[in-house]
Amino acid sequence: MALVPWACCPWLVLLCACAWGNPKPADPKTEDVRNCSSSPQYLPVTAVNTTEKLTALRQQMHTHNLSAYIIPDTDAHMSEYIGEHDKRLAWITGFTGSAGTAVVTMGKAGLWTDSRYWTQAEREMDCNWELHKEVGTTPIVNWLLTEIPARGHVGFDPLLFSVASWESYDAAFQGSDRELVSITANLVDLVWESERPPAPSQPIYVLQETFTGSTWQEKVSSIRSQMQKHHKAPTAVLLSALDETAWLFNLRSSDIPYNPFFYSYTLLTDSSIRLFVNKSRFNSETLQYLNSSCTGSMCVQLEDYSQVHDSIQTYASGAVRIWIGMAYTMYGLYKVIPKEKLIADTYSPVMMTKAVKNNKEQALLRASHVRDAVPMIRYLVWLEKNVPKGIVDEFSGAELLDKFRGEEEFSSGPSFETISASGLNAALAHYSPTKEFHRKLSSDEMYLVDSGGQYWDGTTDITRTVHWGTPSAFQKEAYTRVLIGNIDLSRLVFPAAISGRMIEAFARRALWNVGLNYGHGTGHGIGNFLCVHEWPVGFQSSSITMDKGMFTSIEPGYYQDGEFGIRLEDVALVVEAKTKYPGTYLAFEVVSLVPYDKNLIDVNLLSPEQLQYLNHYYQTIREKVGPELERRQMLEELAWLQQHTEPLSAKAPHTTSLFSLLVVSTLTILS
Amino acid sequence: MALVPWACCPWLVLLCACAWGNPKPADPKTEDVRNCSSSPQYLPVTAVNTTEKLTALRQQMHTHNLSAYIIPDTDAHMSEYIGEHDKRLAWITGFTGSAGTAVVTMGKAGLWTDSRYWTQAEREMDCNWELHKEVGTTPIVNWLLTEIPARGHVGFDPLLFSVASWESYDAAFQGSDRELVSITANLVDLVWESERPPAPSQPIYVLQETFTGSTWQEKVSSIRSQMQKHHKAPTAVLLSALDETAWLFNLRSSDIPYNPFFYSYTLLTDSSIRLFVNKSRFNSETLQYLNSSCTGSMCVQLEDYSQVHDSIQTYASGAVRIWIGMAYTMYGLYKVIPKEKLIADTYSPVMMTKAVKNNKEQALLRASHVRDAVPMIRYLVWLEKNVPKGIVDEFSGAELLDKFRGEEEFSSGPSFETISASGLNAALAHYSPTKEFHRKLSSDEMYLVDSGGQYWDGTTDITRTVHWGTPSAFQKEAYTRVLIGNIDLSRLVFPAAISGRMIEAFARRALWNVGLNYGHGTGHGIGNFLCVHEWPVGFQSSSITMDKGMFTSIEPGYYQDGEFGIRLEDVALVVEAKTKYPGTYLAFEVVSLVPYDKNLIDVNLLSPEQLQYLNHYYQTIREKVGPELERRQMLEELAWLQQHTEPLSAKAPHTTSLFSLLVVSTLTILS
Repeated sequence: MALVPWACCPWLVLLCACAWGNPKPADPKTEDVRNCSSSPQYLPVTAVNTTEKLTALRQQMHTHNLSAYIIPDTDAHMSEYIGEHDKRLAWITGFTGSAGTAVVTMGKAGLWTDSRYWTQAEREMDCNWELHKEVGTTPIVNWLLTEIPARGHVGFDPLLFSVASWESYDAAFQGSDRELVSITANLVDLVWESERPPAPSQPIYVLQETFTGSTWQEKVSSIRSQMQKHHKAPTAVLLSALDETAWLFNLRSSDIPYNPFFYSYTLLTDSSIRLFVNKSRFNSETLQYLNSSCTGSMCVQLEDYSQVHDSIQTYASGAVRIWIGMAYTMYGLYKVIPKEKLIADTYSPVMMTKAVKNNKEQALLRASHVRDAVPMIRYLVWLEKNVPKGIVDEFSGAELLDKFRGEEEFSSGPSFETISASGLNAALAHYSPTKEFHRKLSSDEMYLVDSGGQYWDGTTDITRTVHWGTPSAFQKEAYTRVLIGNIDLSRLVFPAAISGRMIEAFARRALWNVGLNYGHGTGHGIGNFLCVHEWPVGFQSSSITMDKGMFTSIEPGYYQDGEFGIRLEDVALVVEAKTKYPGTYLAFEVVSLVPYDKNLIDVNLLSPEQLQYLNHYYQTIREKVGPELERRQMLEELAWLQQHTEPLSAKAPHTTSLFSLLVVSTLTILS
Repeated sequence: MALVPWACCPWLVLLCACAWGNPKPADPKTEDVRNCSSSPQYLPVTAVNTTEKLTALRQQMHTHNLSAYIIPDTDAHMSEYIGEHDKRLAWITGFTGSAGTAVVTMGKAGLWTDSRYWTQAEREMDCNWELHKEVGTTPIVNWLLTEIPARGHVGFDPLLFSVASWESYDAAFQGSDRELVSITANLVDLVWESERPPAPSQPIYVLQETFTGSTWQEKVSSIRSQMQKHHKAPTAVLLSALDETAWLFNLRSSDIPYNPFFYSYTLLTDSSIRLFVNKSRFNSETLQYLNSSCTGSMCVQLEDYSQVHDSIQTYASGAVRIWIGMAYTMYGLYKVIPKEKLIADTYSPVMMTKAVKNNKEQALLRASHVRDAVPMIRYLVWLEKNVPKGIVDEFSGAELLDKFRGEEEFSSGPSFETISASGLNAALAHYSPTKEFHRKLSSDEMYLVDSGGQYWDGTTDITRTVHWGTPSAFQKEAYTRVLIGNIDLSRLVFPAAISGRMIEAFARRALWNVGLNYGHGTGHGIGNFLCVHEWPVGFQSSSITMDKGMFTSIEPGYYQDGEFGIRLEDVALVVEAKTKYPGTYLAFEVVSLVPYDKNLIDVNLLSPEQLQYLNHYYQTIREKVGPELERRQMLEELAWLQQHTEPLSAKAPHTTSLFSLLVVSTLTILS
């Protein structure tokens, strides 16, 4: 899945050039939008009436002596996907897009969001809301300075503001004679009341040992050992990201869409383990698994989720040093830790340890990718037969693929909303079909499908782009150049501990060479039944350096506005490279195992080395996925696989061109 | 010239991984070193007696109530090379290496320097000095905390400390109960007294208009226009780097070795131009050229160099905003500007403007490189004839090359000390031969020559590596892979405004592929009769994004400890690329025009595209340098050029391997 929209880690929206690099073509969804300047105002049926909600919110603001209140799009853990319980922005504004900030004053209400969502906002919001087509702190603060009086107070929920976000607002308000005020009670929640979906209460379960790389006790010991070795001598690590706690204890649930997590914090100290969670969600076996009835250093003490702030505050009053990951710890917890007791790294040691998969975790992730190839191949075979009949659309296709994946062993649903995009829709940065709005698949245009699964052993993410008819020469060239980018990065040998940023251009060169490019990142980390966008691995400037045992996606693309979109995404494991001369070098082992569309490959653009790599990859697919299909008696799919992994070879024209090059050289020499 | 040692901009030492990546082999120079633990202590004749100097310095420290005094290696402008007048570190320690920090307490004296200089320090320092084999602020401060009493004062010269350096020391001393104290008078200078070389007094001259891209008035207007457009409304730009003032006024002198600069500062305001310099160095024509007799906004007011601190302080007391380049402005000037009046960018607008050469500057730099090829070719021809006779050594070779360059039109000396290194010496990071210590050139080993010239029209920098006998297979492979790196980066097409850091790996891939690499940067900017290492252009993480009109070196290498070193360096201009599909893309146009050593090229490692590029480059050399040699009747050199630029072609084995690949593919398909 491409790095736009951002993801397990929305804090990285800041780092990702969110624009796809292209203006967006008109969308069939866009027609019915509000008109607040007509008389009478026009509201589509999709718009939500927010008048009463705003009145109630303003009463709360009045009670708290606030001139304005800021409502961000995050939850308290900077989760990529937001649970129903946390969709405060959507409830108060009506706008359901995944990125935006709302600000309410006594007289006005405004929503700030990026270009992907402007039309959606005009369809979903009523005329109580101004739409501001900007993002970032500065325009919001500048607007506030004109809207609220001097000495006015601007309220926010400190558990919904990251430290970076708070610092940004705080800096922008400096010297403005307006005050940023942290309000512990969330005012939207106070208004939302009985309408608000309840906090999740389904069981939190133990991931079977078969599917974990280490026991939670081993993980706890490893983190404590890192604490002991740290020169600043931390006494505790505070875990705020939901995947940190899920990983540490090998526990899962389903509080967050697409992510098997549960609302929680962990304070792991040198002598205790404190898990903040809704205790009633554990059964007696799980309580026993956690040794929750004792109080020793290897017993998990359960405290209520809502107690985290007060508990951290009490703990921080002692002679302690608390180690946190700044990228995703909220201001509300950060501020209770005195500066001299804070050890602030970008990522916690749990996040850093989780990034490097051990041998068993690698084997698990590899295995999930072998199985994940099956629904992908089933879907591609089915499309090949049914698209020409004109009976498939983007939405029904996505539903079928999700169904196929759901039938796989250990499946726990999709790892994100399937992107199923035909023709011009594939060039849109943020496109998923809906039951109401979708396009029919056709042999006359390209089709892009970006999807993944959550399995107990691993999380997957793969993109293929296909054409069942006759692609244009430009489509073939663009596809082949995207493929070359994927191949060139996948077959790169590079020194250990290099930053992904320094090598991602290998995925772009073939496109650059003719003046093409793509506007998103080249890849992201991925977890073992955790986040599909798992930080801090990848090719972004904020990613940590590459190490063996990491998994990253490799996903170059090309997007032609109003016409088509191409993306070829695989997941790869970072392995030690065997080099001719000794040294610590790394390479990628691609673990996604689905062939590309030979109908779209111009073989003559590939160098002999690229061709050799591709054929070797196809051989690997045959060897790993073939037996899986055989075992299940999927003979049609097996035949398709054989056919689509036939070795490719340069055709006559290419040979000729090589020959002519040689001839030309020879002639030059003779002349 | 490679990025180690750093250079026109020693502030970048911080950013450059100074280690070449390899431990250093023994050097013939290293044998005669001090032994301070023997009884009696042993000092080589090269060691300098510093007892009296230290006694005098400690008297000054006592007068100023200091427990310690820090002596850095910089001058007041962060110059790459240090004038004799400014070699305080060398005078007080005896150590003449280009990088180090000395700290003197009442009882001890210590020098901190990196591994390149450890042996040299042991040869040059007497036993008054401890050698600390570390760099950075932390080890120095940690040492000071054990050596000086609580409440002790640590003195430093605020004009020799960059802002970053001051911040680093200040942070390290926080909470230590020791105080960092800025002492305006330099204590070493007070002790040095009459022995100190006088400040330069030779004339400062006007660079003829033929050799400049714009008049100084045009440059001043352009910078003022940038000030007007800046959203923070600066009223002045302060120029601290010597090449900024030299460039702005088209003035040159010779205060700094290898750099045609003169000690100066400039305060360019919206209504005045204030040049701080030793006025007596201008003749009446130059005074007229600068309109120095008037006071309008286009008249240059001359103030004494020593007045800069007080003048900036006075100016900063008004309603002003001063724009500075933080990377090279010293703490002593920075601290007199109140924070709210400071506009602090990494580089000043003069540094940024200078980085992009206009059409005339491009033509001038191109022309200087055509001429610069002549002494390089003369030298290579001469070596080919004389090395087999056994009459050439590294030092005499370097002298001859410098002489050949000096005979070129518009020559103004070398642009840095020629690196002339045979065999194992070429693997040393910081090697230049001396009259006393050098190695004989031989047909049995490789020879690396890295050199450049200062010409009135441009600064040059080129490295070639050659072998006159039979290189080993490994030497040929390593050389060819370095060449492929040079070619692959040189022929890259890339989007405008990309960072050099994102593309420099193309210069490394062919090496990485077999487990080889190099430990220095891939290239640096270069000026028009200015710095040979001109910031902020290049491939470092601190370099600004690429833009057409910039010049950068491209210089991959490979170093085999104790055996040989390879570097192939060319200077290239960033130009607009013509791409198949429209878009703003850039490419490099290589302006260095000297063939590589075909004796060291394994043609079969090159792809057809790389070979085609190389042959095209050779064709360009013939077309541009051939006529220059003809014009001068250098027939032997012309014949050599023709011979060494014969088009190269893949030999039979390569063709065969391509064929066999095709055959294998075909067989695979048939099977």
